Amino acid sequence: VSPNTPTAADIWDAGWSRAGAGVAGSAIRELLKLTEQPEFISFAGGLPAPECFPAEEITLASERVLASSASRVLQYGPTEGFPPLRELLASLSARRAIPVTPEDVLVTSGSQQALDILGKLLIDSGSPVLVEQPTYVGALQAFRPYGPRFIPVAMDVAGLIPEALESALAGLARTGARAAFLYSVATFQNPTGVTLSAERRGAILDIAERYDLRIVEDDPYGELRYDGAPAPHLAALDAARHGRPRHVVYLSTFSKLLAPGLRVGWAVGPASLLRKMALIKQGLDLHTGTLSQAIAHESCRDGLLDRQIPRIRQIYGARRDAMLRALERHAPEGVRWTRPEGGMFLWLTLPEGADAARTLARAVERKVAFVPGQAFHADGAGANTLRLNFSYAPPASIEDGVQRLCEALAEG
Amino acid sequence: VSPNTPTAADIWDAGWSRAGAGVAGSAIRELLKLTEQPEFISFAGGLPAPECFPAEEITLASERVLASSASRVLQYGPTEGFPPLRELLASLSARRAIPVTPEDVLVTSGSQQALDILGKLLIDSGSPVLVEQPTYVGALQAFRPYGPRFIPVAMDVAGLIPEALESALAGLARTGARAAFLYSVATFQNPTGVTLSAERRGAILDIAERYDLRIVEDDPYGELRYDGAPAPHLAALDAARHGRPRHVVYLSTFSKLLAPGLRVGWAVGPASLLRKMALIKQGLDLHTGTLSQAIAHESCRDGLLDRQIPRIRQIYGARRDAMLRALERHAPEGVRWTRPEGGMFLWLTLPEGADAARTLARAVERKVAFVPGQAFHADGAGANTLRLNFSYAPPASIEDGVQRLCEALAEG
Repeated sequence: VSPNTPTAADIWDAGWSRAGAGVAGSAIRELLKLTEQPEFISFAGGLPAPECFPAEEITLASERVLASSASRVLQYGPTEGFPPLRELLASLSARRAIPVTPEDVLVTSGSQQALDILGKLLIDSGSPVLVEQPTYVGALQAFRPYGPRFIPVAMDVAGLIPEALESALAGLARTGARAAFLYSVATFQNPTGVTLSAERRGAILDIAERYDLRIVEDDPYGELRYDGAPAPHLAALDAARHGRPRHVVYLSTFSKLLAPGLRVGWAVGPASLLRKMALIKQGLDLHTGTLSQAIAHESCRDGLLDRQIPRIRQIYGARRDAMLRALERHAPEGVRWTRPEGGMFLWLTLPEGADAARTLARAVERKVAFVPGQAFHADGAGANTLRLNFSYAPPASIEDGVQRLCEALAEG
Repeated sequence: VSPNTPTAADIWDAGWSRAGAGVAGSAIRELLKLTEQPEFISFAGGLPAPECFPAEEITLASERVLASSASRVLQYGPTEGFPPLRELLASLSARRAIPVTPEDVLVTSGSQQALDILGKLLIDSGSPVLVEQPTYVGALQAFRPYGPRFIPVAMDVAGLIPEALESALAGLARTGARAAFLYSVATFQNPTGVTLSAERRGAILDIAERYDLRIVEDDPYGELRYDGAPAPHLAALDAARHGRPRHVVYLSTFSKLLAPGLRVGWAVGPASLLRKMALIKQGLDLHTGTLSQAIAHESCRDGLLDRQIPRIRQIYGARRDAMLRALERHAPEGVRWTRPEGGMFLWLTLPEGADAARTLARAVERKVAFVPGQAFHADGAGANTLRLNFSYAPPASIEDGVQRLCEALAEG
């Protein structure tokens, strides 16, 4: 081997695409990997509590589908999804006041996959994409390889601010540009836990109609309400006005209601969009796992979700309460936090000038973890914010972990 | 509703990305959907025979992993893959003479997903991508949204022609361009069934070294050999020269050995590439289904593949023989076909000027189906070619179906 022989790294690093050159690990990602050890109390992940997995029902469902139809559930299946599951998801959508036929349901490999598909279909390099500020980091990660120009839209405790949205759209219109879409986690948002108020939902649809705005409504947590009154989904309001979804494509998942390890999510929305999404999905993974889809269908078809949802609400509601109580008890002066009515996360704002990434290093010494808020900001703001997950750790650990976290916060 | 109110189609169709605008269904795709009815004899799909699924072993594996570790196999998991499965795949790779550590294995949602990831990492609009002519249509579909300039490289009965590859690379070099990669299904190719000869494999690696060429070796069928002597994988030759893979990323899957409905494939190769692939995959679907991965691991860890492979070889080998015999008996004058030593497909070439898409319409009337060859050609050539699958239909149906197909061929 001559000294000029290229290494594997030379050969591969010489030619990444723009998207490939842009993707890189992060110090925080590496730090958070450390915190997956059992002695850590982690508020970092977005993990459901395994106590909530309906393991027995899933085991029975798996036995039943393999006993009755192994040659079907182990075989390749249609890209659009396992037909009985698409029927079940159309009914479930109807219960969420989103009237669609089974033909308008696309099963996806988690709702994460729908984000990638929508990015591919709707974003070109430089396309304006409106996102809540802050927003789900996984959406930023899914969209970023397509080269969007993110336009963060301000939120407050009642969610996305309609005036801020309208002003962003008007600004684009003045330059002759058009937004690819608005991405919104309207209910129990990841990362803030904030829910868009019912009144604002109407206002946002009014704006959508004025600007022909396309909306991606990502709803993984909507069923996980611990108090307060439910607000209608954006897709439901849209369908109520037009008979069926027109401006809104609605994404959801079994990850928080059954088990994320199945990787079964879905999208419903306008037919022309759903058709394109299926054609794109075929190139991505041919279809979502047939066995997983059959298990999801078989477990849910006799009403498992009606038993699961109250159970999860009770367990997570108690954990949210435990976290709020612990914060009230231990949080240092100047730290503020959201009080979510549901979901899995709450959001801390530290005093101006604080650096949550540095706090994380101190928290890790105390064997407690969270995610610093900057990664959730499309524009790199939010250094003084952080996200806490309350669904995974049991209440006693929550009290203990928040106390340790607050010690780290109090140190500066 | 005023007559000027935009429809959902107006709103969504007004703003596809370039990739989104380019994706469209095809008449043949719609026609082939019809042929999924039970009275059809289909040589169209690439389906494994369900008789080969180890349903009992998969059922037991599912029971065992759910009984012993439900909270792990139903939970989110690492993007890189279920750790015990990565270990198993590193051993399996070693048996295929590709020495890698578990850290160099990325589990993917079928090997199809690896194609999308590689497209995202390596292809920009206009990037030259070398493909065999013809090549796997799903690879064209995965790469196309990234805007490649496909450069078809000629094949003959011994596979990709090294001189044709070198001439394409030299042509690119003259214009200062560099190929993103060469995509090759070197063994029992989809669609032709052709295998790259051992001698040519060495020649192609020599060329790769001269041109710093990156190679994507897609190997779903390599274990399915019915006669002839195995040739080393390109990745194995590459690793033998350099200690570990340098030019070649190697993709494989459980879809043909266990069950495609699990959607579990994998990639092994140079570490810097594998790291980027995992970062991209996180944005695509977070990770491949944990339960599916755990089932694949649990079924295989006691040597199931050693029992599966001889069984599949026997069943598919008999079907290949049945198809070759039927073609010899019934094929009209002027039709030629490949004689694959393994895999799932063989390839027919009709006389110059024939149109396989028109033959398909006649074949469908006789309730037999195949895939016309044009879609497998990056440049739209191949109108007089077609692909036949021999793994799915039982031997008696193969005889019957080939006879009907040949009647359709004889009609003109």
